[in-house]
Amino acid sequence: MIITLKKGVTKKEFDAIIERIKKLGYKPHVSRGKDVTIIGMIGEFAEKYKDSFEAMEAVEHISEIQKPYKLASREFHKENSIIKIARGVEIGGKKIHVMAGPCAIESKDIVFNIAKSAKHSGATILRGGAFKPRSSPYTFQGLGEKGLRIMKEAGKKYSMPIVSEAMTIKQIPLISKYCDIIQIGARNIQNYDLLKEAGKQSKPVLLKRGMATTIKEFLLSAEYILSQGNYNVLLCERGIRTFETSTRFTLDLNAVPVLKKLSHLPVVLDPSHGTGVREFVATMAKASIAAGADALIIEMHPKPEEAFSDGPQSLLPEQFAKMMGELNLIAKAVGRELLD
Amino acid sequence: MIITLKKGVTKKEFDAIIERIKKLGYKPHVSRGKDVTIIGMIGEFAEKYKDSFEAMEAVEHISEIQKPYKLASREFHKENSIIKIARGVEIGGKKIHVMAGPCAIESKDIVFNIAKSAKHSGATILRGGAFKPRSSPYTFQGLGEKGLRIMKEAGKKYSMPIVSEAMTIKQIPLISKYCDIIQIGARNIQNYDLLKEAGKQSKPVLLKRGMATTIKEFLLSAEYILSQGNYNVLLCERGIRTFETSTRFTLDLNAVPVLKKLSHLPVVLDPSHGTGVREFVATMAKASIAAGADALIIEMHPKPEEAFSDGPQSLLPEQFAKMMGELNLIAKAVGRELLD
Amino acid sequence: MIITLKKGVTKKEFDAIIERIKKLGYKPHVSRGKDVTIIGMIGEFAEKYKDSFEAMEAVEHISEIQKPYKLASREFHKENSIIKIARGVEIGGKKIHVMAGPCAIESKDIVFNIAKSAKHSGATILRGGAFKPRSSPYTFQGLGEKGLRIMKEAGKKYSMPIVSEAMTIKQIPLISKYCDIIQIGARNIQNYDLLKEAGKQSKPVLLKRGMATTIKEFLLSAEYILSQGNYNVLLCERGIRTFETSTRFTLDLNAVPVLKKLSHLPVVLDPSHGTGVREFVATMAKASIAAGADALIIEMHPKPEEAFSDGPQSLLPEQFAKMMGELNLIAKAVGRELLD
Amino acid sequence: MIITLKKGVTKKEFDAIIERIKKLGYKPHVSRGKDVTIIGMIGEFAEKYKDSFEAMEAVEHISEIQKPYKLASREFHKENSIIKIARGVEIGGKKIHVMAGPCAIESKDIVFNIAKSAKHSGATILRGGAFKPRSSPYTFQGLGEKGLRIMKEAGKKYSMPIVSEAMTIKQIPLISKYCDIIQIGARNIQNYDLLKEAGKQSKPVLLKRGMATTIKEFLLSAEYILSQGNYNVLLCERGIRTFETSTRFTLDLNAVPVLKKLSHLPVVLDPSHGTGVREFVATMAKASIAAGADALIIEMHPKPEEAFSDGPQSLLPEQFAKMMGELNLIAKAVGRELLD
Repeated sequence: MIITLKKGVTKKEFDAIIERIKKLGYKPHVSRGKDVTIIGMIGEFAEKYKDSFEAMEAVEHISEIQKPYKLASREFHKENSIIKIARGVEIGGKKIHVMAGPCAIESKDIVFNIAKSAKHSGATILRGGAFKPRSSPYTFQGLGEKGLRIMKEAGKKYSMPIVSEAMTIKQIPLISKYCDIIQIGARNIQNYDLLKEAGKQSKPVLLKRGMATTIKEFLLSAEYILSQGNYNVLLCERGIRTFETSTRFTLDLNAVPVLKKLSHLPVVLDPSHGTGVREFVATMAKASIAAGADALIIEMHPKPEEAFSDGPQSLLPEQFAKMMGELNLIAKAVGRELLD
Repeated sequence: MIITLKKGVTKKEFDAIIERIKKLGYKPHVSRGKDVTIIGMIGEFAEKYKDSFEAMEAVEHISEIQKPYKLASREFHKENSIIKIARGVEIGGKKIHVMAGPCAIESKDIVFNIAKSAKHSGATILRGGAFKPRSSPYTFQGLGEKGLRIMKEAGKKYSMPIVSEAMTIKQIPLISKYCDIIQIGARNIQNYDLLKEAGKQSKPVLLKRGMATTIKEFLLSAEYILSQGNYNVLLCERGIRTFETSTRFTLDLNAVPVLKKLSHLPVVLDPSHGTGVREFVATMAKASIAAGADALIIEMHPKPEEAFSDGPQSLLPEQFAKMMGELNLIAKAVGRELLD
Repeated sequence: MIITLKKGVTKKEFDAIIERIKKLGYKPHVSRGKDVTIIGMIGEFAEKYKDSFEAMEAVEHISEIQKPYKLASREFHKENSIIKIARGVEIGGKKIHVMAGPCAIESKDIVFNIAKSAKHSGATILRGGAFKPRSSPYTFQGLGEKGLRIMKEAGKKYSMPIVSEAMTIKQIPLISKYCDIIQIGARNIQNYDLLKEAGKQSKPVLLKRGMATTIKEFLLSAEYILSQGNYNVLLCERGIRTFETSTRFTLDLNAVPVLKKLSHLPVVLDPSHGTGVREFVATMAKASIAAGADALIIEMHPKPEEAFSDGPQSLLPEQFAKMMGELNLIAKAVGRELLD
Repeated sequence: MIITLKKGVTKKEFDAIIERIKKLGYKPHVSRGKDVTIIGMIGEFAEKYKDSFEAMEAVEHISEIQKPYKLASREFHKENSIIKIARGVEIGGKKIHVMAGPCAIESKDIVFNIAKSAKHSGATILRGGAFKPRSSPYTFQGLGEKGLRIMKEAGKKYSMPIVSEAMTIKQIPLISKYCDIIQIGARNIQNYDLLKEAGKQSKPVLLKRGMATTIKEFLLSAEYILSQGNYNVLLCERGIRTFETSTRFTLDLNAVPVLKKLSHLPVVLDPSHGTGVREFVATMAKASIAAGADALIIEMHPKPEEAFSDGPQSLLPEQFAKMMGELNLIAKAVGRELLD
């Protein structure tokens, strides 16, 4: 990092900074301009000490130069990581996978019905929430383990690996037991104990970016999981919060090439939450693939007006089927494949 | 809520909506303009069904009219709530309380040193983190229960109730045992299981607004706690994330009169996190009191450059003392009191 | 619009509102719930009176139901508008057009050089700034009319219509004289006198969304131009300002399907400004086309490090050529065409 | 500025950068870490060349170290600037001034009525818009010069200097002729030609920060005016656009101490636009003064529901009078004065 000193700093203050840098095992590089003096402190994890230097009265400003994450970085692993979900299902390679299903698991009938259509249209992974983070305490909170059992059966019947969200540390072993992918939701992106727990088991983790999470923070949250030994992390962009209200969130597609540059981990896009509006989902799914997505996660429901949550953004099965055909064309246009 | 229909909606679609409203126990109010038809569905918790109507193809848009929270609302409790923290320490009344202490508990010496200065300058509550949410897995994560014991001793010695953060469900009974106030941090504002757990015990909860949490969501998160039976919730504004980078966050002081209008709960301001810069803390503390804050929470450290976290925003004890005198003048100017 | 009344409003206050609505020529629709009373005031331009009702003490809140713009709306003109730029160049039809060129016009040599490559790679419109809005007064401000003459010559030589920005009312006739499209920049999106002036002449206008402009405000700014009689408006999304700093702006691709739904006007995307980083431009250009863009505007420079402005986001000619081939594939995949 | 190089940069690329720095008259300072090489280029206006270095393939990132503005900076002028508006009216000294009046000038009667109350309550400057920037072309656009004449008469009768907004270059001499302060509105913060024109005349300029303008950009816009020779600039914070919708804008009070640190220019706060809600204005006015405001600008109207614009945020005269008494107490508490 680069330490810019205040104008008029005393020799004593200057020396204290230099001493401190040396003590921490780094070599200070001093550059003096007419009005400004800067000190470079360069080396692995130097940025870790940012706060302690910034807290010194003589310091005007710190510029970060190096990345504060390591295992998640492209430097650490040059090739794209390919993450194995189940037999024949790998994310991060040529094939683009589509995860589909209802927002919440409501009943066996509905889940099986959706799984059948999803599979038929080319989806390869089944999604569905058993534990639901709802902003109001007065709305449906999910079926819990009963829901997971339904999912598992549906996944088995239609040969689809399944993904569901864990909201608490206690739910991690449960989701890990029933599912092929553990989802960590946007609201838990900085629930660090939950991240660590997800890192201590071996099932792949679908990590959703929070609505106000910077790319740097997103990769640091991924690092929490990786640092515990689980390298199977899928990064999921699902819309950020901006001033615009015509969509529920603003799907940040810039994030795809940025993440691809900075990290080796696969990138999943969620146009359902990223728009919040059914009629925009297919369009943004296409844009996501053109932007380089390795997988998509899409909400589908046969009767959205009866869905317990997220009905407005759920596709009807026939809309989903139509979209899959269109996505396949885009996938080919970018040298990928989607349908067999 | 108000349901605006799409232009050219069929009679069948219209009837389906009317039927649905009646079935849910509400009375539909239809208004037809030349180009647009709207249907009012008014009554307690009508907004709960927003998604299910929005999911219908015939619906153009839903406008929310009523508040989705109840126990947190000013309508539910007209008077300002006054929350008792300890003998002689009540938040929400005439007296403005200042919570002060280090970001993280680092050692007994430092905590006692800070507690002594804080008390001497007029702070009435001691703050300090035993469990720390850090964006990087490679930085100091807190002393845990050992830290809580130090805090308790310091609180006892200087007759100050103490506040510390719980990051997981498991930590709730621990914090509840040692502390007088349980803090739920900004990163856990939508960690609903944690909120519910905090609602199941009786110690007051300091609930920090997330960096991208709307006022409505903030009050819904408070509602999660209240709905479990714990009515002792303190709402804490600590800065929101905006495009501006000259401060770490943007302290949203507008939120103070807005919260005071919508809710009966006391409002606490955190100018340390809300600015992230030591030299701006005292100024924003003054502005907070002028805006109507019932309490402040301030970071202080005798050697900020050696602090394990948040050094750049920690006040020196002498700066803290000076600030308290200034705050007292503002408190008097708005008809409150701060120092005895 | 829907007027929600405060609880406990008096009969006198209620009557005053009803009277006012009638006086303005609208019919009030009253709906009373147990706790809340709402009044519908529905009809063309009712939203114009939003402020005056909101200003009344008895009013709690106004919900807008109808759109405040008219000529820009899809209701006004059901089909997509196709805007003729020059012989054989129409935007809004099957063919996707690419506008390319330097950020600023620097010299005849460079412009001709770029025009030649751009044309050769399939660009159909030449862009270049003669008047530059620069955030610092100490940087290059553009060649002015001399630049426009260079552009005109280059456009003539390579048979490309040209587009350049007008920053002031006085520059409108100048740009209109030399160019085929007048650009109104993001910083002038609410410079209403400039918009009106652009509406009083007949050349097509490329209107760039501001960095904090909502879709509604964007269409209202377009309405300013349309309301003066010029219906040839191209809506350009160029990135909005969010908390994310890894790209210069956040290209809001959600805006494409939203604009397509609400308006009949063609949509142009600017991935150069929308990312600010050369290596992300081609990827986001592909995503833009998949999202439904009718045209793109791209910055190109043979020696970006010598460009007077926006070098970091300018493509090299060979990068541009490669991108055009890729874009062509995406265009075909969405049923459009780009290269002949 | 600090140039961080990409890993694996060639000697040739490195030399080209060094050469370029020397050619521009700066001295390069090279620091090499194990993984990263940085080059310091420090000196006045080095940041001007940011883009041209960032455009080079070998460059990973540029960190700005020095401020890109000069005349507006605290370094250039250490003392607070005190700006003389009229005889006995100076902004930036001990006395805090309050500008009050209607949003738009509607009629002589109303303006005189308001001026009388405002003066009586202690306001020292009269505000009112003759040219109004309205987001819809179908709403009232202002009385123009006729309005300015009314303002001038009212100002004369009640001995108050007056302030009104110029929206175009042509209006600058007009406003300059009739008024004591020229306001440049938030929507024109980057209308650079307008800023330059305001800098070429001598009347003080009230420059309003745009809704998505960073502090750095705000000071650069001020620099445009200063660089033309007019040093009488008042910086006005009026609310920024964030995700929060419970207020019209988010009044950024952090900006006050930040601007005071970075610049010598007086700071004016606009709580009327910064909240958009009448009942929050007085509270935020108090907070503004506690945060260090040198002046306030407040909208007032005797019949807000009949105001042509901004009725919802306009204070009634009796509310204004009450507020002034409260502000006076806060002013004293921070060592300033407001009422005589």
